[in-house]
Amino acid sequence: MADADGHAAGARPFVHRVKVRWADCDPAQIAYTGRLPALALEAIEAWWEHHTGFDWYRINRDRGIGTPFVHMAMDFRSPVTPRHLLDFEVTVTKFGSRSITYSVRASQDDVLCFTGEFVIAFVDAPTFTSRPLPDDLRAAIMAADAAR
Amino acid sequence: MADADGHAAGARPFVHRVKVRWADCDPAQIAYTGRLPALALEAIEAWWEHHTGFDWYRINRDRGIGTPFVHMAMDFRSPVTPRHLLDFEVTVTKFGSRSITYSVRASQDDVLCFTGEFVIAFVDAPTFTSRPLPDDLRAAIMAADAAR
Amino acid sequence: MADADGHAAGARPFVHRVKVRWADCDPAQIAYTGRLPALALEAIEAWWEHHTGFDWYRINRDRGIGTPFVHMAMDFRSPVTPRHLLDFEVTVTKFGSRSITYSVRASQDDVLCFTGEFVIAFVDAPTFTSRPLPDDLRAAIMAADAAR
Amino acid sequence: MADADGHAAGARPFVHRVKVRWADCDPAQIAYTGRLPALALEAIEAWWEHHTGFDWYRINRDRGIGTPFVHMAMDFRSPVTPRHLLDFEVTVTKFGSRSITYSVRASQDDVLCFTGEFVIAFVDAPTFTSRPLPDDLRAAIMAADAAR
Repeated sequence: MADADGHAAGARPFVHRVKVRWADCDPAQIAYTGRLPALALEAIEAWWEHHTGFDWYRINRDRGIGTPFVHMAMDFRSPVTPRHLLDFEVTVTKFGSRSITYSVRASQDDVLCFTGEFVIAFVDAPTFTSRPLPDDLRAAIMAADAAR
Repeated sequence: MADADGHAAGARPFVHRVKVRWADCDPAQIAYTGRLPALALEAIEAWWEHHTGFDWYRINRDRGIGTPFVHMAMDFRSPVTPRHLLDFEVTVTKFGSRSITYSVRASQDDVLCFTGEFVIAFVDAPTFTSRPLPDDLRAAIMAADAAR
Repeated sequence: MADADGHAAGARPFVHRVKVRWADCDPAQIAYTGRLPALALEAIEAWWEHHTGFDWYRINRDRGIGTPFVHMAMDFRSPVTPRHLLDFEVTVTKFGSRSITYSVRASQDDVLCFTGEFVIAFVDAPTFTSRPLPDDLRAAIMAADAAR
Repeated sequence: MADADGHAAGARPFVHRVKVRWADCDPAQIAYTGRLPALALEAIEAWWEHHTGFDWYRINRDRGIGTPFVHMAMDFRSPVTPRHLLDFEVTVTKFGSRSITYSVRASQDDVLCFTGEFVIAFVDAPTFTSRPLPDDLRAAIMAADAAR
């Protein structure tokens, strides 16, 4: 269950920390907007590796499962710079049979920089058709969340 | 005025065409999701250059105006590959005094791949504080839209 | 045969033109060094598409041929900015049975920005083992070069 | 002093470790060549932060010093994948008054993937003209190297 802010009630979010680099920044001296979705996706991939033991390369190649994005929405509040680490809080707000909805909050030095909602679907990698997650991966995600 | 699909009624969208490359693709043999927002931003930058004569570098450096994104939302319908050019239709759905809302539709070979809504604000580049567009740029945008 | 500058004597180089964007630039207000090799690779991919009719995606997927880079060297002379288009001159300096060596010159507004040498090998895509180019592709490259 | 392999004799290299991601890979199921120079640059930026306390953003903005690349050369030996971490060994092979030459070796699971030589110059950031490093930064680099 999620509260009005998109925080899951009772569940501690998974945290992924990123060093923002010169390469991420544009002539306005802040991280380029076009880089921020990619950094958020990196945080979600880190969530997968932490929860299932598979990063996207392994889950695709070794398990034949794809996790394409079907939706993303982001609101930008405060510029991101290399002056502080960028902390991503990743929370599952809906764990469906064929998709997961994530709420992402990105902050630097306790200042909220941007928020996002991301929805991925599960597909059979070779055919790119919808499928449910295998039971062991579903169980691993539930167990990892319960342990936090 | 926009219809229910986010298409501006009576206005022809600005079209920007992109060659999708090997570099844009991931091991699933399709364009990586994290690249698609960046390509959409490129289409919006091309809209700026076409309508005002200033790309983002010039408007920032020569006019002291920044155009940071405050919101983006994207829905992904069909995978993007290098097999066809990627055509962006960029339509202004709201031209406010301190922001612009764009509707973006990206398709390949007449198949809709993804849609997006993007909102930018106008800021004074040195101070990053909200400001209206200068009259000449506002007039150039109106004139360019009327001419199409 | 190439002269001392790495220009092929008697052959006109293939030219590929790139719009440098805000996204390519860093806080020093110039294109980020880490982006320049990727832009040079894009010019070489354009060379492939022009000479063989296959971009890297198609040659890999449809012909089973990979073209991995085994060497690159670049010298940076003058900063790249969005103020001018970036013109790549791509010249084959050695067309071997299992590799091609390219000389690349990138300039803006007739100012030389950087030069590069790039060597690709031909491999069987599924096994990533060295192989010669198929005769039709070799002939297409020779014919395209002769026509220029 | 460096031996024939480009390893500094008697100096332990600085090590920077990178998680290779799905986003870094191309349809050949390996890291895209165009990403590898950027990852090497990240390792060199990490060297700066470790040795001087300044990342490139801070040294540019807070100290007014730019570190543009004037040369890079890379040899690719073995494909890079997400299956192992990518370990960069960064060694200074020449510490000049107005430039530094680095030797970089990148390996995964003790397999050498690529090597590189990179030369940066020191410039006054506002004017982009050559200058020596300030004494405190030079001393910090010498001290950090001596301590390892």
